[in-house]
Amino acid sequence: MLRLDLIKKNADWDAYDAILISGWENMRYVSGFDVIEHQIGETSGYLFLTGNKSFLLTDSRYEAQAKSEAPGFETLIYKQGPDEILSGLIKDLAIKVFAYEPEYLFCSVFNKIQDRIGADVNFVPVSNLVEDIRMIKDKVEIGLITASLELTERVFQDTMHFIREGITEKEVAWFIEKQIREGGADSLAFPSIVASGPNSAMPHAMPGERKIKAHEPVVIDMGSQLNGYCSDMTRTICLKEPTEEFRNVYARVKFAQDAGIRAVIPGIKSSDVDKAARSIIDESPFKGRFGHGLGHGVGLATHEAPSLGPNRSIKLLPGMVITVEPGIYIPGWGGVRLENMVQVTENGCLVLNRDETFYEF
Amino acid sequence: MLRLDLIKKNADWDAYDAILISGWENMRYVSGFDVIEHQIGETSGYLFLTGNKSFLLTDSRYEAQAKSEAPGFETLIYKQGPDEILSGLIKDLAIKVFAYEPEYLFCSVFNKIQDRIGADVNFVPVSNLVEDIRMIKDKVEIGLITASLELTERVFQDTMHFIREGITEKEVAWFIEKQIREGGADSLAFPSIVASGPNSAMPHAMPGERKIKAHEPVVIDMGSQLNGYCSDMTRTICLKEPTEEFRNVYARVKFAQDAGIRAVIPGIKSSDVDKAARSIIDESPFKGRFGHGLGHGVGLATHEAPSLGPNRSIKLLPGMVITVEPGIYIPGWGGVRLENMVQVTENGCLVLNRDETFYEF
Repeated sequence: MLRLDLIKKNADWDAYDAILISGWENMRYVSGFDVIEHQIGETSGYLFLTGNKSFLLTDSRYEAQAKSEAPGFETLIYKQGPDEILSGLIKDLAIKVFAYEPEYLFCSVFNKIQDRIGADVNFVPVSNLVEDIRMIKDKVEIGLITASLELTERVFQDTMHFIREGITEKEVAWFIEKQIREGGADSLAFPSIVASGPNSAMPHAMPGERKIKAHEPVVIDMGSQLNGYCSDMTRTICLKEPTEEFRNVYARVKFAQDAGIRAVIPGIKSSDVDKAARSIIDESPFKGRFGHGLGHGVGLATHEAPSLGPNRSIKLLPGMVITVEPGIYIPGWGGVRLENMVQVTENGCLVLNRDETFYEF
Repeated sequence: MLRLDLIKKNADWDAYDAILISGWENMRYVSGFDVIEHQIGETSGYLFLTGNKSFLLTDSRYEAQAKSEAPGFETLIYKQGPDEILSGLIKDLAIKVFAYEPEYLFCSVFNKIQDRIGADVNFVPVSNLVEDIRMIKDKVEIGLITASLELTERVFQDTMHFIREGITEKEVAWFIEKQIREGGADSLAFPSIVASGPNSAMPHAMPGERKIKAHEPVVIDMGSQLNGYCSDMTRTICLKEPTEEFRNVYARVKFAQDAGIRAVIPGIKSSDVDKAARSIIDESPFKGRFGHGLGHGVGLATHEAPSLGPNRSIKLLPGMVITVEPGIYIPGWGGVRLENMVQVTENGCLVLNRDETFYEF
C-alpha cells in the first residue's frame, strides 16, 4: 500500500477532519518531498491531509522540487508562511476539527493559523500518526539503512588507523566528519561522540581538547545520514593494553549486549529486551551504572520509535530497526558502551553491523 | 547595564508577570549559557524571568556548564522537560500572566505547560523582547563579528585559489566548509551557496553537481560562526573573461551596493536604505530583477533584526551590524549578488569587510 494511503487508513477521521504534517522526516516519508530545514524557525513545507485530499504547501523556492518529488499531492505555494493558504483550505473544505503534530509545530505558526480561523475550528494535537508507521521499514528502507551503516563502519575502520596517543578528541571527531562527508553522506547522523578517559563516563560527552592516552577507554559513537537514512554505532577501544578494570567493565557490557540482541524476536515487548541486557549488568558489581535506555529505532531520524527502556512496552515487529547499546559508566574512571543496529525479522533478528571491533576478554 | 537587567527593564511587566525565553540565541545572549540544539525537538535549556527572579532550566547533562556560564541565574534541573518545574514556579510565584516566545517554542512544550497549569494562568506570546536589544552590538560583539568575518574572508581567498573550470559547485562548497571548520569556527553560519551559470539566478540555490565553466557568473555566499557570532558575505566571480552581459549586470549591482552603503547613517529608516540601492537597479534595464530585501542584521544569528526591505521601517542606530546585498537575477542566464557587512556608527557607517574582490567595469 502507498505510504500516503496507509497514513490515511490509520488516521482517526472520527476525531479530526484534517491533519497538518510538519515534521521534516514525516513529510519526506509520506510525500517524498525532501527539503531539510537548515535554520530553526524557517520552514520549507507542510502536508495537509483530509480523508480524500492531499496538499503540499511550500514556498516558491521549492515549487519545482515539490511537484517533481511529490506528484501525488496538490502543491500550493505560500509567500510568508502556511497560515493564509491553510485558513483558506480549512474554510473551503469545511474543516471542523484540525489536527497538528505538536512536536514539530512552533507556537508562532499555530497562533497565526488560529488567529485566522477564529473559534469555529477545534485544534487537536496528534502525535505519532506517521511515526508509528515509520517504525516498520520496507526492503528499500532496510537497504538504505544498511548502506548508511556500511559507510559509517568504513569510516570507523579508517578512524582506527588514524587514532593515536596524543591526538585530541576533537581532532578524531573532525576526522570522522570529513570521512563521512567525503564518503558521500548528506551529513553526520548526529554530532560524533569521541570521549576518552573520565569523559567516557558521560553518555553524551562532547568531543573536547583532551588528548587521548593509552590504557584508557575511548567511546566512539558515530553515524552518517546517507540518502536521508541514518546509521548509529558505538565501539569502545583502548590504545595499548587495557587495564584490569577496562577488561571487567568491557566484558560485562559485551555480555549484556549479546543478551539484549539474543532477546530480540518478533512479539517481544521492548521493555523485556531492555531487561534482558540490563539484568546482566545489574547482577554484577556494576549494578546501577547503566543509566539510559537500551536503544531506539533508527530510520530517517537517528532517534525514532520504538524506544527500548525499562518503562517502554512497545511490541517489536518484523521490519523494525533498533539499536542495542548497553553501557557501564563509572564517574572519574570512564565508561564503555557498545552499540549495534538490529533488524527484527520474521524469526528473530539480524545484526546489520559487519564490523567486529570487539575485544574478547 | 547587564544584559539581564536591560531585558528586565524593557519587559512590559504590566502585560505579564513572567516570561519564558526558549530561543537559543536569546538564551545565550541574556545568560551566557551556550548549548546549541543539535536536534530539533530536543531542548537543552530555558530561561524563566520575573521582575525580580531569574531561573535557568536545563537537564542534568548541562548542570555544571549552566552554573559556570550563567552565575546570575538559579539553575533548576529537569528530567523529562521543563513543564514540571515551570508549573511549580508558576504556582509558587503566583504568576497570573505567563509570556513565551512563540517563534522558538514547540506546541508540545506549550501544551504540557498549559495542561499542568489549567485555566488559572493566561498565556501571551511576546516576540522580539530580546531580539530588539540584540540589534545593538557592543564593542566585544563587534570584535567577535569582525573575527568571524576575517575567517570567512581568509577562506574566501583560499577558495579563489582552489576554484577552477570543471570543478563542481558541491566540491567548492565542501572546500569552503572544511577550511572554515579547520580555521577554528564552531560551524558554518549557514549552508554555503555556490551557484554557477543559470543556477546563480536562484538567490537560495543549493550547491549541486554542476561543473563550473568559464565566462559565467558564480555566486559564492558564505559565512562562519566563530565563538557564537556569525559572518555573511557574497561575491560573484567569473573564471576567464566576463561576457558583456556579466559586465553590465555586475556594474549595476556594484553601483547599487555602493549607493546602499552610502545611505547607511544613524537615524535613517531601513526601508530608505533599501530604496537607495533598489532605485539604482529599478532605473536600469534590470528593473524588477532584484527580488529580495537589501539585507539583515547579523550577530549570534546569521539572520536577525533589523531587516532591510521595501516594507521595513526600523530606524538604524549606532551599533547595529547589517548586510547590504543587492542582486540582479535573470532566469536562464544567471545572477550577480554582492554582500558586505556594515556597522552603523555615530556618524555614518563602517564596512567591516576587508576583502576587495570586486570587478571594476
